[in-house]
Amino acid sequence: MISSTVLFYGNYVLCLCLGLLCVVFVSYWNIEWRGGFAWDASFLQFNWHPVLMVTGLVVLYGNAAILYRIPFTWSQRKQHWKLVHAALLLSSLILSILGLCAVFDFHTGYHIPNLYSLHSWVGIFTVVLFTAQWLLGLVGFLSPCSPLGFRKLLKPVHAWMGMAIFILSLASCLSGINEKLLLALNSTAAYSSHPAEALFANFLGVLIVAFGLVVLGILSNQRWKRPEPGEESSRVSILLSDEEHSDVPSCVSEHQLW
Amino acid sequence: MISSTVLFYGNYVLCLCLGLLCVVFVSYWNIEWRGGFAWDASFLQFNWHPVLMVTGLVVLYGNAAILYRIPFTWSQRKQHWKLVHAALLLSSLILSILGLCAVFDFHTGYHIPNLYSLHSWVGIFTVVLFTAQWLLGLVGFLSPCSPLGFRKLLKPVHAWMGMAIFILSLASCLSGINEKLLLALNSTAAYSSHPAEALFANFLGVLIVAFGLVVLGILSNQRWKRPEPGEESSRVSILLSDEEHSDVPSCVSEHQLW
Repeated sequence: MISSTVLFYGNYVLCLCLGLLCVVFVSYWNIEWRGGFAWDASFLQFNWHPVLMVTGLVVLYGNAAILYRIPFTWSQRKQHWKLVHAALLLSSLILSILGLCAVFDFHTGYHIPNLYSLHSWVGIFTVVLFTAQWLLGLVGFLSPCSPLGFRKLLKPVHAWMGMAIFILSLASCLSGINEKLLLALNSTAAYSSHPAEALFANFLGVLIVAFGLVVLGILSNQRWKRPEPGEESSRVSILLSDEEHSDVPSCVSEHQLW
Repeated sequence: MISSTVLFYGNYVLCLCLGLLCVVFVSYWNIEWRGGFAWDASFLQFNWHPVLMVTGLVVLYGNAAILYRIPFTWSQRKQHWKLVHAALLLSSLILSILGLCAVFDFHTGYHIPNLYSLHSWVGIFTVVLFTAQWLLGLVGFLSPCSPLGFRKLLKPVHAWMGMAIFILSLASCLSGINEKLLLALNSTAAYSSHPAEALFANFLGVLIVAFGLVVLGILSNQRWKRPEPGEESSRVSILLSDEEHSDVPSCVSEHQLW
């Protein structure tokens, strides 16, 4: 039987490859069919939008989310990996905000109103939630004066919000690719005749779905969670005598919620 | 402190209300702005598509997924609730297939090719995966001759696939609403001028996001999992001596994966 660690690394390598393919595909799409990039409030500035959102909000974010799952990091100080986690997410957030600037500048240049489509509503909500999550994480988990009780309370909320943001970012990217193809190909007839660009960009969507499912699969597997100090003993004590949670039969402690 | 059971029922009632609102909103949108319903390969037949997909693939599916989490059912025979779970999912699957028939018939009537957009690719993949999942669930969990070893192996895969299908169905519905508004309002200018229909349908998207996040929140909370016979003792034994999983420090057993 394949060991859990080998299975993890198999999934992790798959996740890295899919993430890389997503970045390559979204860049190639915009170079080959959309004219490449510029930062001059033209259509070419818009082209940064999908590249920055897929790279930042999906690929970098997904990789930051599964960082603590890597067994190699478990024997090392968590504080160091917290900093790497926070730095990766900050890079992801900066790329996402630049991606929003790209589309807002383009809209201003062409007098197109902002935030009218459902794609834009879900997308902006995702980035706002992500910003709040990053700041709360900084205060709660990296500030030395954050009380232990607050950290314990915040942890399941942080993990849950983290997964919600990732799912929303997947939905935003898929609806965004769909919207871009409908608008760029200018008519249903052009899109529905299966041109090479449409097939290529649809396949980018398939890659994003595959990447998202692998990341969520890794996050969902409790056996790949980083062990916390004293976790084993606390699990035993909860199993043997759980007064606080006596109305529920589960043995899991608060930090196991995600 | 609010007990876990009270918190569950609060979330459950919220989930029921949001689900009901989703059905009301998607129906009202198509009655008020899209001309209502018919089954005659016209635009009016298409209008069944969003109603059936949101009702079947999102609302009914989400409710079926959290059925085992209801504490009220824990004291009753699981076999009965398995049948309710399977029946709810079969209704969900039938509505989804009818929803696909609605759009395919409409496409045939108007000579529009099928399955060209990313929305349609994600949507059809979701329904195919759902069909495979339902059939595998029937064979694995309801057939009396299904071996115990196969059930144990299938359970985490079934739970993981179930969540993946739900996330994909959310992404399909959001991209579908976005696509419908772009096509129905006929131009970016019409959509971006914030007409009442666009605001209403975008708000339907917000309701779907809220419903999805509540369902996923309920599924993710390990304390709301239905206790399995002998689960406590198996957890203790795994904690004290876990030879099979000796390369990972977690104490959780296979059926806790989701």
